[in-house]
Amino acid sequence: MTTLTRSSKQSLNSPASDQALDQARTALGRTSDRVYLDHNATTPPDSAVLTKLSSWALDWGNPSSIHQHGRGPKTRLREARDSVSKMIGASSLETIFTSCGSESNTMAVRGALSALQKKGDPRRHILSSALEHPSLRRTFDALKLEGYDVELVPVDRSGRVNEKDVEARLRPNETVLVSFMLVNNETGVIQPIKEITRAAKTVGALVHTDAVQALGKIKVDVKELGVDYASFAGHKFYALRGAGVLYSARGAPLDPLVYGGGQERHRRGGTENILSIASLGFMCSRSDEVEGRAETIRELRNYFESRVLLEIPEASITCLESPRVASTSSLLLPGTDGETLLMSLDMDGFSVSTGAACSSGSPEPSPVLLAMGLTREEAQCSLRVGLGWSTTREEIELFIETLKRVVTRLRGLRNWHPSPTEEQVS
Amino acid sequence: MTTLTRSSKQSLNSPASDQALDQARTALGRTSDRVYLDHNATTPPDSAVLTKLSSWALDWGNPSSIHQHGRGPKTRLREARDSVSKMIGASSLETIFTSCGSESNTMAVRGALSALQKKGDPRRHILSSALEHPSLRRTFDALKLEGYDVELVPVDRSGRVNEKDVEARLRPNETVLVSFMLVNNETGVIQPIKEITRAAKTVGALVHTDAVQALGKIKVDVKELGVDYASFAGHKFYALRGAGVLYSARGAPLDPLVYGGGQERHRRGGTENILSIASLGFMCSRSDEVEGRAETIRELRNYFESRVLLEIPEASITCLESPRVASTSSLLLPGTDGETLLMSLDMDGFSVSTGAACSSGSPEPSPVLLAMGLTREEAQCSLRVGLGWSTTREEIELFIETLKRVVTRLRGLRNWHPSPTEEQVS
Repeated sequence: MTTLTRSSKQSLNSPASDQALDQARTALGRTSDRVYLDHNATTPPDSAVLTKLSSWALDWGNPSSIHQHGRGPKTRLREARDSVSKMIGASSLETIFTSCGSESNTMAVRGALSALQKKGDPRRHILSSALEHPSLRRTFDALKLEGYDVELVPVDRSGRVNEKDVEARLRPNETVLVSFMLVNNETGVIQPIKEITRAAKTVGALVHTDAVQALGKIKVDVKELGVDYASFAGHKFYALRGAGVLYSARGAPLDPLVYGGGQERHRRGGTENILSIASLGFMCSRSDEVEGRAETIRELRNYFESRVLLEIPEASITCLESPRVASTSSLLLPGTDGETLLMSLDMDGFSVSTGAACSSGSPEPSPVLLAMGLTREEAQCSLRVGLGWSTTREEIELFIETLKRVVTRLRGLRNWHPSPTEEQVS
Repeated sequence: MTTLTRSSKQSLNSPASDQALDQARTALGRTSDRVYLDHNATTPPDSAVLTKLSSWALDWGNPSSIHQHGRGPKTRLREARDSVSKMIGASSLETIFTSCGSESNTMAVRGALSALQKKGDPRRHILSSALEHPSLRRTFDALKLEGYDVELVPVDRSGRVNEKDVEARLRPNETVLVSFMLVNNETGVIQPIKEITRAAKTVGALVHTDAVQALGKIKVDVKELGVDYASFAGHKFYALRGAGVLYSARGAPLDPLVYGGGQERHRRGGTENILSIASLGFMCSRSDEVEGRAETIRELRNYFESRVLLEIPEASITCLESPRVASTSSLLLPGTDGETLLMSLDMDGFSVSTGAACSSGSPEPSPVLLAMGLTREEAQCSLRVGLGWSTTREEIELFIETLKRVVTRLRGLRNWHPSPTEEQVS
């Protein structure tokens, strides 16, 4: 998975001038003049989704209505639920539509604990990590104030939670919930959820996984993972914003987070957002494309990383040796500042990020990278590149040349030079 | 407000035959062969919303991204917030986007109480009514299990909460929250929220109003009402599903319900659903149309009700003498069963309901009507007619004729005859 291809650098070996780049862009027929490499923040709706938008919007009726205007939407809802359920390996009764991944995360944790507390369950110990999405980290912060003992399993620079570290911290009769993400949003590292779940089940703990960054990137089978709850979001998988999913295994305790009518079998109130749900269902009906798309993206990503490592002195790839999804590349570019880098690249027409969009605007370096043991200095020179289904070889070529040029310029401004004692390829 | 117009019944005085109705439909150029009179359940997206759908969908970037792809969506978000805030009389900092009205309702109550509890507030008494939306009724059910004392103020057949009844039940140092809806979803009755708020403030209670059925139907000014929280939903006002609003007055205590990144100033996590939010903002930018539209609808509704009262023996209008929004007509049609009536009308091409869509599918009569003191028998013969911006005189004419025919047929099947001791016009 971490083998890099070293081909195809012939044509762009010498840095192109700005003018040459402009010419290249024009030649490539780029009309929007923008290259989007931030697919972890959100994905553009698939072109087929955009085509179907108007027809879905015409099914605006309330699926709870028992007249004709409710029947079309109800059918769309059922079809979407079937298609999502099939893709994640759940039964349709176990698939709950929410409004987003953050809601699914909050709901899983709050809903499980609330239901257990009502039954008089005395367990108050939770295991998770510092790599989790803010929706979980902040839910845990709230739970701490309510008497829960939230323990974060340490993670090293591999970015991978070690199942042994989880196992060692499980407390029989105390650990009530274990929650780890399946794919990290900043590094792309795939966590050993199956192994963690197996360990957690030995003490009877419930298991939740935030699989938001996994859907559409790797095969996700909730039964195979063995988890009780899993969170998903449509807008990370080329569907519209506004549809999330919480998988809740049959029999798993779960109180609603949002109350309402009898929607989602009384588990999530609110008139269903058919337009967004239909778009997610549609994308999930294309699950057989996932593997092939990932393979194409992996080749592009590996090509990109090999070029970066070869051509940008002292650049490194975070979690290079860990199992990662194909689409994420987390770079460290010493001698640059991530924010400045991002803004320079933005001015040159490239959308990338320094970390999670959810935390952007904050001057602090990524808490995820810091939690992995990177120094503040390292975290501050990080850049996240997120490839997607529409990413082309040409975009990657353009991006590499621009990145090299911008890094060189920023390093020059700081009068930074590669350390002479280190090899150029780290 | 309850004066009925008695004009314009000349042309359709004698019941039209089925064939004549079909001819009338054809003449009216009805292509979909459906008349939608269930606007309280949900509204069709305005045609201008459908036109703008694709352009909004192209602003798919994450508004939290600091690159170019995030800037368009961020601008749309700000514009929508300004436009919604202006329409409801709030400042933009007080306007929080949620996913739906049910979420806004749950969030207001949960968020306020959670924040107060953290501060050690000992008050546990809540005042509300049995007329509220299920999202509130079920939130209250959950709170009762957590030690809250939820008291429901009784309501009579007027469907109106009496502020004196609220006042009499307020308990200094005990009442923490008062929550009443501004407009009832089944009867259309407008509640005296301003007066209730004034009373509640004398004991320092927080006030929430569910204004979901008010937006776009009457002028709503949260400052004038004086409430601390107000809930709204886009899909009851010709916007897309997927955008709700919680108004939370500056300084009002409020914990998040959905945790996440820093979205909505840390009050509601989750990547913002720009498409739905933009559609709601767009509709709110048309707030100056509301009054005129309501006037047109009121004339149609009054005409409809006058015809029903004149031509359907023993028919009556629920809450006829109470202040009501222009668009709702809640009928009692003795000698029929609401569900059967609904299904017959559905087969004839009319979408109406027996009560809230949120409770449909349930064989039980409307809990709202029962709470108002209607008998089970009365509640079971109720029909809710919800007019909207696109409702035409022709649709109303067709509906009246069909309703008369269907009611006569159903009464005949039951061998039901008007009581000879009552006047035809009740």
